[in-house]
Amino acid sequence: MTDGPPGDDRVVVALDVGGTGMKCALVRPDGSVLHAERHPTDAGRGPDAVVETVLAVAGGLADRARAAGSIPVACGVAVPGVVDEAAGVAVWSANVGFRNVPLRELVGARLGLPAALGHDVRVGGIAEARLGAGRAARHVLFVAIGTGIAAAHVVAGSAAVGAHGAAGEIGHILVRPDGPRCGCGRTGCLEAVSSASAVARRYAELAGATASAADVAGRAAAGEELAGRVWREAVEALADGLATGQALYDVDTMVIGGGLARAGGQLLDPLRAALHERMTFHREPRLVAAALGDEAGCLGAALLALDSLERR
Amino acid sequence: MTDGPPGDDRVVVALDVGGTGMKCALVRPDGSVLHAERHPTDAGRGPDAVVETVLAVAGGLADRARAAGSIPVACGVAVPGVVDEAAGVAVWSANVGFRNVPLRELVGARLGLPAALGHDVRVGGIAEARLGAGRAARHVLFVAIGTGIAAAHVVAGSAAVGAHGAAGEIGHILVRPDGPRCGCGRTGCLEAVSSASAVARRYAELAGATASAADVAGRAAAGEELAGRVWREAVEALADGLATGQALYDVDTMVIGGGLARAGGQLLDPLRAALHERMTFHREPRLVAAALGDEAGCLGAALLALDSLERR
Repeated sequence: MTDGPPGDDRVVVALDVGGTGMKCALVRPDGSVLHAERHPTDAGRGPDAVVETVLAVAGGLADRARAAGSIPVACGVAVPGVVDEAAGVAVWSANVGFRNVPLRELVGARLGLPAALGHDVRVGGIAEARLGAGRAARHVLFVAIGTGIAAAHVVAGSAAVGAHGAAGEIGHILVRPDGPRCGCGRTGCLEAVSSASAVARRYAELAGATASAADVAGRAAAGEELAGRVWREAVEALADGLATGQALYDVDTMVIGGGLARAGGQLLDPLRAALHERMTFHREPRLVAAALGDEAGCLGAALLALDSLERR
Repeated sequence: MTDGPPGDDRVVVALDVGGTGMKCALVRPDGSVLHAERHPTDAGRGPDAVVETVLAVAGGLADRARAAGSIPVACGVAVPGVVDEAAGVAVWSANVGFRNVPLRELVGARLGLPAALGHDVRVGGIAEARLGAGRAARHVLFVAIGTGIAAAHVVAGSAAVGAHGAAGEIGHILVRPDGPRCGCGRTGCLEAVSSASAVARRYAELAGATASAADVAGRAAAGEELAGRVWREAVEALADGLATGQALYDVDTMVIGGGLARAGGQLLDPLRAALHERMTFHREPRLVAAALGDEAGCLGAALLALDSLERR
């Protein structure tokens, strides 16, 4: 974090652009939020319209900051999919509709401010590692479990990006060779077994009735046998995936976030036990629930923008 | 690399201590080898005797350097197992018999030189990434396949160590939930299916006759059906493991080393094809054979020692 002088009135404009909504905020250098707002993404309008909304919302936030006597110093934007952070390009964001959009340049030009573009889960991981549940640890794996599953490996506050902006795709590691087909085209990916959508799909298959992952968790807790079975299968596969993550990354702390983590102890307790069983010679990581909820991405976008200022 | 002045006569004493033998050398700052020698480890004598041999060999190499008019400036030692590089401690090296041996301090005191301790595969990865087959790439995964399987994730010439010195344990990721039991105690680890020892074991199981992994490779190449099946199973599981590595690390180049890589194209060609099949949305890494053979660990120990000098 940048510690400004007393009475520091600098703020960063931060946007986390998702498939359904945008979480937006003015964030102070110490990570505290001056103002937050949300907007629909309405991705069906096409990528050009979404980009225009991003630019308009960012511009509006910068104006609001100035009107309140603050000084906007940078803008950070987070998007899902494949993100080339070095080039500032949203390479491929399926659910937002972006394909090679030079978003950093567009935002920078519109606002007249330095800008940074990041991957939603990676910047969420940066936020959880620096400000959230991983605060005490140097080596953190943030795992977001929602419609999909993705991770960010954060060491000393920086997230690994990889050679092509695609590091941390823990949703697409093999856990069940004979398992269901994944949206990516392979069979047995973690995401195809343990994501919120996979849990709902599996329950529908077995029960012949639709239910959300949260419903399945609730029914499992209430003692429904079928729901319990579906939940256990998802937790076991997730533990296999986390054990693989630990073998390769060797972290201190794993922070579990995303929609499925709202199940709290009902997810974390059996997951911790199942991970423990799988640790042989490895040091077992601390397994904790994310602390920042769905604001992690927006806060992380702000941190990324602040980092980019420090490097200038 | 440290580029010394013309006529630079500095050398580093480097030792790679394995379960059976030690590869030792005097290495110049540009990575060239002034002198190399090998010694048996004879681990059966117990850890104290092995440590004494390490110290005697290192001291002898430093003396030899001075006698030849060179100036030994540092000593690097590589060992297998779990290595705390920050503390300079060989935490756990099963096949050498080390348990919490403060090897860096011992070597430094005996030689009166700055010393560095590294993990054999991680420093081998550093050497392959900087001097060997990964020279052109910034993001490299070095995978050593021999009796066991381990990896080093090297970015910009530095290997990830992890929170407890145990990063890169790709041999112990799940690839076959219904597969054979691994030496680590779990079922279905990559090492239990695709290591040289696993290939030999599987062939013995099916054929009722003993053969080394190299024999199996040879018989498969000669058209023996059973050997071909065992080899294919190992290659398929290895491709699953590498695909998981790519999902999590997202590298440019994978460098395949260790004993099994001596099979050359017979391993690399089908492995490349099998990995290609498994890439969906990911960028496919370049898959190449290691270039430094069994000298990688010794060269990497020298590089680690040189790096530690630069940081002083």
